[in-house]
Amino acid sequence: MNATDTPLPRFADVLAAAARIAAHACLTPVATSRSLNEISGAHLHFKCEQLQRVGAFKFRGACNAVLALDAGKARRGVVTHSSGNHGAALALAARIRGIACHVVVPDGAVRSKLEAIEASGATVHRCAANLVAREAACANVQNETGATLVHPYTTLEVIAGQGTAALELLTAHPDLDALVVPVGGGGLASGTVLAMQALAPRCQLYLAEPTGADDAARSFARGVLDHDVVPDTICDGLRAGMGAINFDILRNGNTRVLTVDDAQTIAAMRLLWSRGKQLVEPSSATVLAAVLANPALFEGQKVGLILSGGNVDLDALPRLFGLAG
Amino acid sequence: MNATDTPLPRFADVLAAAARIAAHACLTPVATSRSLNEISGAHLHFKCEQLQRVGAFKFRGACNAVLALDAGKARRGVVTHSSGNHGAALALAARIRGIACHVVVPDGAVRSKLEAIEASGATVHRCAANLVAREAACANVQNETGATLVHPYTTLEVIAGQGTAALELLTAHPDLDALVVPVGGGGLASGTVLAMQALAPRCQLYLAEPTGADDAARSFARGVLDHDVVPDTICDGLRAGMGAINFDILRNGNTRVLTVDDAQTIAAMRLLWSRGKQLVEPSSATVLAAVLANPALFEGQKVGLILSGGNVDLDALPRLFGLAG
Repeated sequence: MNATDTPLPRFADVLAAAARIAAHACLTPVATSRSLNEISGAHLHFKCEQLQRVGAFKFRGACNAVLALDAGKARRGVVTHSSGNHGAALALAARIRGIACHVVVPDGAVRSKLEAIEASGATVHRCAANLVAREAACANVQNETGATLVHPYTTLEVIAGQGTAALELLTAHPDLDALVVPVGGGGLASGTVLAMQALAPRCQLYLAEPTGADDAARSFARGVLDHDVVPDTICDGLRAGMGAINFDILRNGNTRVLTVDDAQTIAAMRLLWSRGKQLVEPSSATVLAAVLANPALFEGQKVGLILSGGNVDLDALPRLFGLAG
Repeated sequence: MNATDTPLPRFADVLAAAARIAAHACLTPVATSRSLNEISGAHLHFKCEQLQRVGAFKFRGACNAVLALDAGKARRGVVTHSSGNHGAALALAARIRGIACHVVVPDGAVRSKLEAIEASGATVHRCAANLVAREAACANVQNETGATLVHPYTTLEVIAGQGTAALELLTAHPDLDALVVPVGGGGLASGTVLAMQALAPRCQLYLAEPTGADDAARSFARGVLDHDVVPDTICDGLRAGMGAINFDILRNGNTRVLTVDDAQTIAAMRLLWSRGKQLVEPSSATVLAAVLANPALFEGQKVGLILSGGNVDLDALPRLFGLAG
């Protein structure tokens, strides 16, 4: 995958995505919490994508990609590989359009996410938990069915669709000083850049990244994409390596990476649950963890934070929170 | 406490409460969930009082009672007994007005709720976990300080304040076929009746009650208040026996009690968390449990449900959900 061969998406693509998905996606609320404001010393505005359909922002990009297909392509269906939220999102988007959907799921995916994929009627193909096996299984489905690949974060329509979350947040709060989003493959982050450049060029974008999957931090430090990181984090939504096209978009933005370790993320997740009453998954909590770990950066600022999703495996809670049974 | 000596609160008191607390309480959102609609076969509208200040509807009544005090009484402070949310709510309301607050807390109260009381600067008085000990400790504080008792559910201003949750819900959705609220002492339930009689007289009120604390069901069946129930339920917010004034108000309303056992409540709580992404405490989940246990009553109806609070002890989750550590 070489980004230089692909035209980069623009703000107009985010606007087109917003129009395309409007009838199907939720305009999610922006939550505040006095108690979390006190703890952080900042004015926090949480974009609640855990309340998006399938419980994650991923529905925006998947829905945009499916609805953008011409009739001929749509007839042959769509395929993707995903450890969870993107797969569930694509399955639902395909069901809405009435087309076939194939999802390649690596072993070890979170059960609640796998169930969501199956509940939407997609065909699940299991494979080993590595990128080579994922891509081979995807290619296999493409060859057999003619389905269009909707990549979790490098497909242009996916990036543009993810940008609609920041579009909504910045339309409601155009005066944010900073915006913090989680970064894994970079679909949400790069879509966010497109919206920010148009609507809030002075707003600082921070990418919250687990230290156990810090390829974005390394890539920004080196100036070239680092693909040598072997992810080790509880944030199951943020284990993917950043895409080349996503990196290209992010380098053009006013972007800084803040890494947080899993203990910081779990502490932030506890605060989001107990104080914010927001039921979010670990990946979402990285954004609050990043703010709490860097008080000097955010003191007194009006900060937007995108809570990316809320698909938590309830049976895994004791392990997540380190609780006794 | 004899209800017949007390004038019953009216809808005008609910409107007065709404005006009094407007600057301090949240106008909480009403959430919907396609997935919970599908599961229930009804159109569910959840009033999210877990997003109220102190994480429970109790702030409405406590705030109204504190703000309604004349200057002379206010100077001597307020006192109450509470296993949790009402105590935290009164403590915050007193802090807002700048007056003293004493909370008598029975042994065995949920830790997160106790912490909220202390965080608001109230004086905590521990006592044994029975009504006699609670009332004795309260009387003691009253004698020593001259503080005004703000009872968790029988004080008129508390009842009127709790009615503002239904006032908001019915203002936004005047066409509800049914409204389901949890019942413990009956403060929320009786306040809800006042709002419904004025705004939606054809709406059916259902009280969701744990089978392990079913004094309301017994009282309605017998036509007189039953105080012989020894509560045994995980719903720590619903263990109180119904007040006489609350019973009087509810008997005048179009009211029916639906009992649910703790297993049904926990199953409903899991659904509210996993599908609705609403972080609610067990008492709140009784309302969904009551709908799911009585599909014929609610099929195809537009149903309001008041989620009463979200103060869950995260450390108790494995036990609540029956999970292994």
